[in-house]
Amino acid sequence: VLTNFNEILEATQKNQTIKISVAAAQDEHVLKAVYQAFKEGIAEAILVGNKEEIEKCMDICKIPHNTFEIVDVKGDLEEQSKKAVDLIMEGKAQVLMKGLVDTSIILKAVLREKSLRTGRVMSSVAVMETENYHKLLLLSDPAMNIKPDLDAKKQIIENTNSVAQALGIEKPKVAILCAKEKVDLKMPETIDAQNLVEMNGNGELKDCIIGGPFALDNIVSKAAAEHKGINHPVAGDADVILAPELVSANTLYKSMVFLGNAKSAGVIVGAKMPIILTSRADSEETKLNAIAVAALIANRN
Amino acid sequence: VLTNFNEILEATQKNQTIKISVAAAQDEHVLKAVYQAFKEGIAEAILVGNKEEIEKCMDICKIPHNTFEIVDVKGDLEEQSKKAVDLIMEGKAQVLMKGLVDTSIILKAVLREKSLRTGRVMSSVAVMETENYHKLLLLSDPAMNIKPDLDAKKQIIENTNSVAQALGIEKPKVAILCAKEKVDLKMPETIDAQNLVEMNGNGELKDCIIGGPFALDNIVSKAAAEHKGINHPVAGDADVILAPELVSANTLYKSMVFLGNAKSAGVIVGAKMPIILTSRADSEETKLNAIAVAALIANRN
Repeated sequence: VLTNFNEILEATQKNQTIKISVAAAQDEHVLKAVYQAFKEGIAEAILVGNKEEIEKCMDICKIPHNTFEIVDVKGDLEEQSKKAVDLIMEGKAQVLMKGLVDTSIILKAVLREKSLRTGRVMSSVAVMETENYHKLLLLSDPAMNIKPDLDAKKQIIENTNSVAQALGIEKPKVAILCAKEKVDLKMPETIDAQNLVEMNGNGELKDCIIGGPFALDNIVSKAAAEHKGINHPVAGDADVILAPELVSANTLYKSMVFLGNAKSAGVIVGAKMPIILTSRADSEETKLNAIAVAALIANRN
Repeated sequence: VLTNFNEILEATQKNQTIKISVAAAQDEHVLKAVYQAFKEGIAEAILVGNKEEIEKCMDICKIPHNTFEIVDVKGDLEEQSKKAVDLIMEGKAQVLMKGLVDTSIILKAVLREKSLRTGRVMSSVAVMETENYHKLLLLSDPAMNIKPDLDAKKQIIENTNSVAQALGIEKPKVAILCAKEKVDLKMPETIDAQNLVEMNGNGELKDCIIGGPFALDNIVSKAAAEHKGINHPVAGDADVILAPELVSANTLYKSMVFLGNAKSAGVIVGAKMPIILTSRADSEETKLNAIAVAALIANRN
């Protein structure tokens, strides 16, 4: 089981090298991250996009042109995204990464290809490392699904568990985040929590241990859980947190990063290959971590 | 302007001493907190409840019986709560505190008395101190209102601003928490944010500067806001965060405490006097901080 990002980077270096297909690669911050991952032996890449602009960016970033294969696409960003997706379908790359193109365009290019779908919704996962918790914490869904219904929540848990398993957590402990520990008809998310626990009990949601509803304190603190008389294997020892909707997931993620000095990595899962959507505001470290996590997932696929 | 709990404690010690009416005071952890506050010169107290049991608890906590006035109520917890509220109405105490009685019972005793209402909903406020932010951060509503509508949000902001003003923040900067910065019809909380900003513009919500919708990073980090091209006085410099509903507020509060080592104090506002509801799981420090914040609010009232 990998318990921090150093171990994740090391594990990736030992694995077979995976290849990233970068859509609209004419983007300095993405090229820097990919080059860093290449130098660290974490991943190789194929750069898809406007070759002239890509090489201009490479010059600015002092990346030798022959470091990566470049696939020149003269067309617009839709075509560049489609070509990057094609490389995945042809088996030439195992991870998709967003360059200088809107998230919606690259996701559309993926969704169009039935062979890349798994039947599950796509969702984002944040892998978090904080010195205030004794292991990695996987958080869903801080970036994509606004208000998932029960079925979507089930699929998001399956997505997130696949990431946990790529990190060596065979049977992840999944906590359903709410604001309290009791089922309350005035709080629909507590009813969803009860249903998810039941699905886990009857085998609809397999290969994990689900607990909830929980408020955050009882998810991450054994002492808090004991204080409240909560005795559940997930309490104080969760691997995965499922938030009820986007605001709480996004806020928890950003609170850990900006008010708790946590390290993080974000990936999109639910398609046949992981997708990396780094943003300009991400630190160099965060981008490298995201590539490493995606590489681990791809290696398990 | 008070910027941390040390300054809050000092300010309280310099102010006129306020008196706490403790409902169902036969509770060791509450008596310990009240005694600590008394010894530090922060507050005095009147203990309402079963005198015999109160004195038994005082013995266990090694509190001399003559430290506090005890009002013996033979009746049940409803009657003990009612008597504690009566002391507020008679002007004998300025802060109400929950002892060994359910929150719902003590709140009912308050709500029954029209003279104690302000016309606003009651809401909880968490005052947070973290080394990852340059000043105190007030967070609403982590404990009471499940899914406030626009009007309730307006009232909760007014409640929270009254606490900010008691801390010396004359014109608090209020950030409306969402998961993104743009108004999005699929995210009703962003529409509420826009409406609250408009209410601030047209004078319906006074004596504060409201900004939003914001995701958390742009509320607490100037660098993140600048990275996103957000140039608003509230961005990266908020005094108050209004969360859209209970789960995100509760999760942010607990994330700061359990995953970010923040110090905190919680009070209930919206009635004529502040109400303190500490829980057994709160640290000694948290309970003392709550009493100090309530004392500041009472002194301003």
